[in-house]
Amino acid sequence: MRKFKALMLGICAVALCACTSQQSTAVQMNERGTRWSWDKGTIVVETPERPEGQKSVIGLTVPKMEVVRVGFVGLGMRGPGAVERFTYIPGTQIVALCDYEKERAEKCQKYLEKASLPKAAIYSGEKGYEELCKREDIDLVYIAADWMHHFPIAKCALENGKNVAIEVPSAMNLEECWTLINLSEKTRKHCFILENCCYDWFEMNTLNMAQHGVFGEVIRAQGAYIHNLDQFWDYYWKNGENDKLGWRLDYNMRHRGDVYATHGLGPVAQALNIHRGDRMKTLVAMDTKSVVGKALVEARTDSTCNNFRNGDHTTTLIRTENGKVIEIQHNVMTPQPYNRLYQLTGTKGFANKYPVEGYAVEADQLSASGVQPKVDDLSAHSFLPEAEMKALVEKYQHPILKRYGEMAKEVGGHGGMDFIMDSRLVYCLQNGLPLDMDVYDLAEWCCLAELGELSMDNGCAPVAFPDFTRGEWNVVKGYKHAFASPEDEKAAAEKAAAFTAKLKEQGAKEWGTEK
Amino acid sequence: MRKFKALMLGICAVALCACTSQQSTAVQMNERGTRWSWDKGTIVVETPERPEGQKSVIGLTVPKMEVVRVGFVGLGMRGPGAVERFTYIPGTQIVALCDYEKERAEKCQKYLEKASLPKAAIYSGEKGYEELCKREDIDLVYIAADWMHHFPIAKCALENGKNVAIEVPSAMNLEECWTLINLSEKTRKHCFILENCCYDWFEMNTLNMAQHGVFGEVIRAQGAYIHNLDQFWDYYWKNGENDKLGWRLDYNMRHRGDVYATHGLGPVAQALNIHRGDRMKTLVAMDTKSVVGKALVEARTDSTCNNFRNGDHTTTLIRTENGKVIEIQHNVMTPQPYNRLYQLTGTKGFANKYPVEGYAVEADQLSASGVQPKVDDLSAHSFLPEAEMKALVEKYQHPILKRYGEMAKEVGGHGGMDFIMDSRLVYCLQNGLPLDMDVYDLAEWCCLAELGELSMDNGCAPVAFPDFTRGEWNVVKGYKHAFASPEDEKAAAEKAAAFTAKLKEQGAKEWGTEK
Repeated sequence: MRKFKALMLGICAVALCACTSQQSTAVQMNERGTRWSWDKGTIVVETPERPEGQKSVIGLTVPKMEVVRVGFVGLGMRGPGAVERFTYIPGTQIVALCDYEKERAEKCQKYLEKASLPKAAIYSGEKGYEELCKREDIDLVYIAADWMHHFPIAKCALENGKNVAIEVPSAMNLEECWTLINLSEKTRKHCFILENCCYDWFEMNTLNMAQHGVFGEVIRAQGAYIHNLDQFWDYYWKNGENDKLGWRLDYNMRHRGDVYATHGLGPVAQALNIHRGDRMKTLVAMDTKSVVGKALVEARTDSTCNNFRNGDHTTTLIRTENGKVIEIQHNVMTPQPYNRLYQLTGTKGFANKYPVEGYAVEADQLSASGVQPKVDDLSAHSFLPEAEMKALVEKYQHPILKRYGEMAKEVGGHGGMDFIMDSRLVYCLQNGLPLDMDVYDLAEWCCLAELGELSMDNGCAPVAFPDFTRGEWNVVKGYKHAFASPEDEKAAAEKAAAFTAKLKEQGAKEWGTEK
Repeated sequence: MRKFKALMLGICAVALCACTSQQSTAVQMNERGTRWSWDKGTIVVETPERPEGQKSVIGLTVPKMEVVRVGFVGLGMRGPGAVERFTYIPGTQIVALCDYEKERAEKCQKYLEKASLPKAAIYSGEKGYEELCKREDIDLVYIAADWMHHFPIAKCALENGKNVAIEVPSAMNLEECWTLINLSEKTRKHCFILENCCYDWFEMNTLNMAQHGVFGEVIRAQGAYIHNLDQFWDYYWKNGENDKLGWRLDYNMRHRGDVYATHGLGPVAQALNIHRGDRMKTLVAMDTKSVVGKALVEARTDSTCNNFRNGDHTTTLIRTENGKVIEIQHNVMTPQPYNRLYQLTGTKGFANKYPVEGYAVEADQLSASGVQPKVDDLSAHSFLPEAEMKALVEKYQHPILKRYGEMAKEVGGHGGMDFIMDSRLVYCLQNGLPLDMDVYDLAEWCCLAELGELSMDNGCAPVAFPDFTRGEWNVVKGYKHAFASPEDEKAAAEKAAAFTAKLKEQGAKEWGTEK
């Protein structure tokens, strides 16, 4: 009998091999060079082994910086604003400015003059950033170039031992994600994704509430980038007069999937403690056909566009290891109000940002969180009345907003969140703390594009997320912003102020504006 | 060389068979008896062949009814309201009232007395509806029982040659869908789904706008049933004192998938012309784990619930043959404001109902639709100002609302939409017109539950929709409400009024309330 069983097992095994070798586990490769295979109806991409001698950068810190010396690369749309914001942050030095077009780099000197800070070195041309990255006197390369150059510039900076901060989306495919991870692990330098929406007011306060249990267990979260770009398409940089589309429309034409997921995904990934006790496990993506995108190309090229890859509206569903769901949408094509769909659904409460900000929590939950309901019949079936909402928001105002909120509103940059992001980045570097986002966040948030493309090009099949931490997603428990002790903080702030004061004297001389 | 090719092909074929026979097309069966198989990563369910001699009921009409003679089955939560509404509709006769509990049936006589209409026959007990369905003097069986009895009662009614109107969800699985389709095709009787949300104000006006091209091509639509049933669970009928959960919580505990999809799906399916030029082709579903549901059961049974099948929040994505996307959500568990997520995304405009009603259309589009923008800088980046919105809604007020809207607000029933639904049903029957929803709509809207369960129980794999029309989804072009000619309409209305007048005389005698 046992023999018979063994025999049967043998036959099954053989049959299964015959099968799997044909189909289910046969390795396929997509046009980005990603190797993947089927596993019981799910697409599984290969995870490269961690190279010998490398270890994780979870919680990575670098030595405290008395001053953060920055080189900016990419000074078209987003770059100049970043340069100006840094002139307001004590303990930073703008060492170099780089853009493909020299004039755009030169133009940014005006911000230094305005702040009476010393002139910065100028780099330009296609490879200007390579020279910038070689400088010994730069701690951080701040990248605000077009999407296609985020990766090569970041790679170059890390290879030259620099910390990098990269505008979104910071990596366009899995290969770029893994390369940045390996570089950060190898060089032990920070690779920071400049996801400003993580620092927006409603998102930060709501994250703070979630971390204090106001919503019970958060089991579902939403985010999106829904922004009709029809007034912007013509302003994206064009590579000569034969370039009719500009880099962004051209990129959307050639790439399916959510190519701009991080504004929606970043804030909710933090609220769900992704790779701090949970992980994104599976996604499915589904897009509409392209109608508006196709028409945009045809209007600009006066020819038929038969393959505009990016659907007008893309929806991605993600299930986590702990059985939670994240929904992310992308639509830059159709006319509708701007919407990031930010929403948290908890077992005891609910937060929703667009089109009107609102919270719904049960009365007992509200009292438990220290806010006394002013209305008797308060129920979670409707949003909190204004008074209760105001009280709740005041009570849970995020410490980072308390610190930078006021100044952020003065300096500006997307309503101030850009300034808060830059200030936090500098604060963590000056105090030798782990950054708010690490290279694994970057990879997790950016991989939606290629994984979604894989899903949709295969009939919306489920796709398993690679574990970018390579086994360490459950080491840290709960997402946290790092803070230094009051004493250390004070010391760092004083050094920073002193340095900037000196710098401004020097700058005043250079610009001949001494008083 | 050719020989070699042939040989290779042969080998491949054999290898493939070896494989497919092992896996991809091996027929599997779920616990509901549905047979399905894998086809390149997509789950395909078997479509039963149309029985000999049956043909489609697309556009089905039955002879004009001078009076619509109705028997009501299920007089618990939803039934009594329906009985009362029918006392306001001329040309109807409430012939019979049936409920498992006799008192509940008897209680409904009060509505007839109030309207001085003749008493109805009373049926009760587990099989009371079978007797009711056998009556010769009933044209329509109106079913408002609990979910598990929608199908058996409808089946019995059709088998007895009656037209049926069924509360939602009208079919709980694919087998019930196909049985109702075959019965309607065989008996040539109407099988109508009582989806009241198709008759709500915003939905009807927006449908009218969509049909007039205000939004350009609608490429994406959303709907949902998000309603925290916290305060309702204890009011669902319990089968004796050993039934601790009541039928609805028990059903959710035992069934995964969107078990209540039609409120969200119905209105958007009409806007997207489903089986009138387009069809739902593939779905993927993803749910959160059950936290609240599990806790509800444990609180009522004082025991651990290890397998509450229905996730607290379920999301289903559907792609249509024409490359459009429908998103449907279901959440009756977590505390948050009521929301049906009704939304249409078009290439030229946008409509959104919750939490605030709004339209966004480009200025030229607004002018084109005959509404003169009152503000100069009108852009589709924000919702229309109140004046423009009001003008747009007035211009596109749906003809059905014009007719029944005022009275609906008086009679009530979910803000009046129930009365509009009933009135339309009676109008079409009196005028011998096709109904607003046919049995294929019923099947398409109700099948989400089992198809979603199939998807989620297989790692959120894509599932192909069966074509319930069996090849005729593209025969009719565009969804339309049927209307009779003004003359016929007038004639029917007069007959209806006359009949009801007579009936009220008779009723007054019976109730001893003659004046």
